[in-house]
Amino acid sequence: MKVTGKDISFMKRALQLAAKARGMTSPNPMVGAVIVKNGKIIAEDYHIRPGELHAEALAILKAEERTKNSTLYVTLEPCCHLDKRTPPCTKAIINAGIKRVFIAMGDPNPKVSGKGIAELKKRGIDVVEGFLGDEAKQLNEVYCKYITTGTPFVTLKVAMTLDGRIATPEGRSKWITGEKARDLVHRMRSGADALLTAVGTVKADNPEFTARHRKDAKSPKRIVIDPHLETPLDYKIFNTPPETVMVVSREADTAKKQLLRGRGIRIIESEGARVDLKWLMRQLGLMEITSVMMEGGSSLNAYALQDGIVDKAVFFIAPKIIGGLHSIPAIGGKEFRTLEKAFSLRDMKVRRIGEDLMVEGYLQQTVKEKKQPPYSPFLKGEYNI
Amino acid sequence: MKVTGKDISFMKRALQLAAKARGMTSPNPMVGAVIVKNGKIIAEDYHIRPGELHAEALAILKAEERTKNSTLYVTLEPCCHLDKRTPPCTKAIINAGIKRVFIAMGDPNPKVSGKGIAELKKRGIDVVEGFLGDEAKQLNEVYCKYITTGTPFVTLKVAMTLDGRIATPEGRSKWITGEKARDLVHRMRSGADALLTAVGTVKADNPEFTARHRKDAKSPKRIVIDPHLETPLDYKIFNTPPETVMVVSREADTAKKQLLRGRGIRIIESEGARVDLKWLMRQLGLMEITSVMMEGGSSLNAYALQDGIVDKAVFFIAPKIIGGLHSIPAIGGKEFRTLEKAFSLRDMKVRRIGEDLMVEGYLQQTVKEKKQPPYSPFLKGEYNI
Repeated sequence: MKVTGKDISFMKRALQLAAKARGMTSPNPMVGAVIVKNGKIIAEDYHIRPGELHAEALAILKAEERTKNSTLYVTLEPCCHLDKRTPPCTKAIINAGIKRVFIAMGDPNPKVSGKGIAELKKRGIDVVEGFLGDEAKQLNEVYCKYITTGTPFVTLKVAMTLDGRIATPEGRSKWITGEKARDLVHRMRSGADALLTAVGTVKADNPEFTARHRKDAKSPKRIVIDPHLETPLDYKIFNTPPETVMVVSREADTAKKQLLRGRGIRIIESEGARVDLKWLMRQLGLMEITSVMMEGGSSLNAYALQDGIVDKAVFFIAPKIIGGLHSIPAIGGKEFRTLEKAFSLRDMKVRRIGEDLMVEGYLQQTVKEKKQPPYSPFLKGEYNI
Repeated sequence: MKVTGKDISFMKRALQLAAKARGMTSPNPMVGAVIVKNGKIIAEDYHIRPGELHAEALAILKAEERTKNSTLYVTLEPCCHLDKRTPPCTKAIINAGIKRVFIAMGDPNPKVSGKGIAELKKRGIDVVEGFLGDEAKQLNEVYCKYITTGTPFVTLKVAMTLDGRIATPEGRSKWITGEKARDLVHRMRSGADALLTAVGTVKADNPEFTARHRKDAKSPKRIVIDPHLETPLDYKIFNTPPETVMVVSREADTAKKQLLRGRGIRIIESEGARVDLKWLMRQLGLMEITSVMMEGGSSLNAYALQDGIVDKAVFFIAPKIIGGLHSIPAIGGKEFRTLEKAFSLRDMKVRRIGEDLMVEGYLQQTVKEKKQPPYSPFLKGEYNI
């Protein structure tokens, strides 16, 4: 089967469509679909949110009876399992008489994972797999992590000076980066299921800790690690939407816990004052939180790296230098890594955001993590309609 | 007078020619010249080193009698003063019958500074000034600084992890950046008149502190701040070329000073153990050192910024994170700046160097410094042949 530049542009279109639903499909993946006949797009659509039809099903509906002998470009392997309210997409594709299917990536969901592709092939449909697969995997990096591990995809965000400081020795951090970078942080927040920070950051600034930009979708939950429940009751995180989840020690003040529960605050209890972040990520996974954006202080950032929960790091770097041995470093903690064993980023990308730089990359260790056996609760996060 | 795209490309050619002598013209500027007649280059050349002919004089010689009614593109205002071994370039241009001159920038040397341009105009030559002036000023940023202040242009170089550390708590720093970045550092060194560091860095690594790449030009001097003369006598800086200059306190061991002097080491004595870096830069200026590349530790870097001697900062950033409250920060020191008063970089540029990033920019404060009255010893560094 001959693959042309046109095929690439149709798949790119499908990826663009998929990305339109960024931040809205959780726990489902973003998926786009384009149907082409005689070199022209006859229908296209994307999955908008859980409970709505899949992208390929929507496009087939729109195309009506013109689908006969057409080509479908879809960014994720069509589903084939029957335990859903509607028939599987493979059936819809077969019934529509589509003769070729380009698939950007296989569905990492163990319920699908190649079975959808196998079914299409068995029915004589030409299938091209892994077509712009890297782009598709990056688009759905959150879904891929969650569906295979049951734990959220964690992005560590740091805003620092060029000399690696997130605050002066007195803890002042307003503002290190410029308006455009702060704006982008709000857009990043709105794409996450939850935001994670610790009591130090909350006590220092009494932040609202919300995503300013989110209009048409659910707001990310606020997760605050506060072992001794030190956050004052009149602080914004307890008195403004959206939902706040406090991670506290079992030993923390029981009356205060009760009072907060009464006010709709969710309490997660951990053993001891040093919260095991790997354990916490499993708890968040059980709550169907597929992605977490971490905006902690120097020591939470260090613990997150040490506990190996960070998938992606995003550093906003301002063209400023404050110096001083006691200024707060981006990554603190009692421990450090040698240069040979340093945490290292792969696929590093750099962008200019206003006057600042944004440097992002993936933590190397997450590659190993993906080889772990799937964690059971992921089934709650399946791609179902 | 009509200026066209061709004029731009001829001046770019002149700038390219000028840059060929990078690292070799000190204390003179880099200058390139192109002579064009009927839309074609008939001669071109550049200033290779002090004592050799100026670029425009060389090009005129090469063009022989074809210069009549030609156009000259020169990256710096031609000289007009008579206190040199050869006649001024303005005379050569006038005698050659050149009718148009494009000049990228005026010569900041107070002996020329507009007088060359005025003389050409007086003789009826069409002069276009400031043509690609920004490029020319950047090319000769070292010369501009030195000729107007009498002190060297200082580049602060830092190699650090993404989290702003230059070493582990035990002082290990080998290697933070990759081979390509380290290679570029050697090329940068070879463009400087002197390298500056402090005793801590020397004692930690016993470095040779030279420019590996420099084959066809003089090697940069090594300047080491070592108030108590702690560097062991068998260390490489005392036993390998090129010249080493030790900056020591008046109170340091007299016998050791004498011994070093006997071995050809130059000793500069400062008042007290905390060397005033502004004072030191004036001493280096008197030695006709026009450019200094600083490769110090956390505290020298901090002092250099505090003392306001840094013109340009170049940060090599590795995609690594080591964390730890006690890992060594890029910029240490007892003092820090608030975010409002942070040292800030303008014209920030980012490049990828192998796996690392290179972020460079100019310290804002140097803009103010340029307004200071010229420092007298600059006359030693004039652009003479």
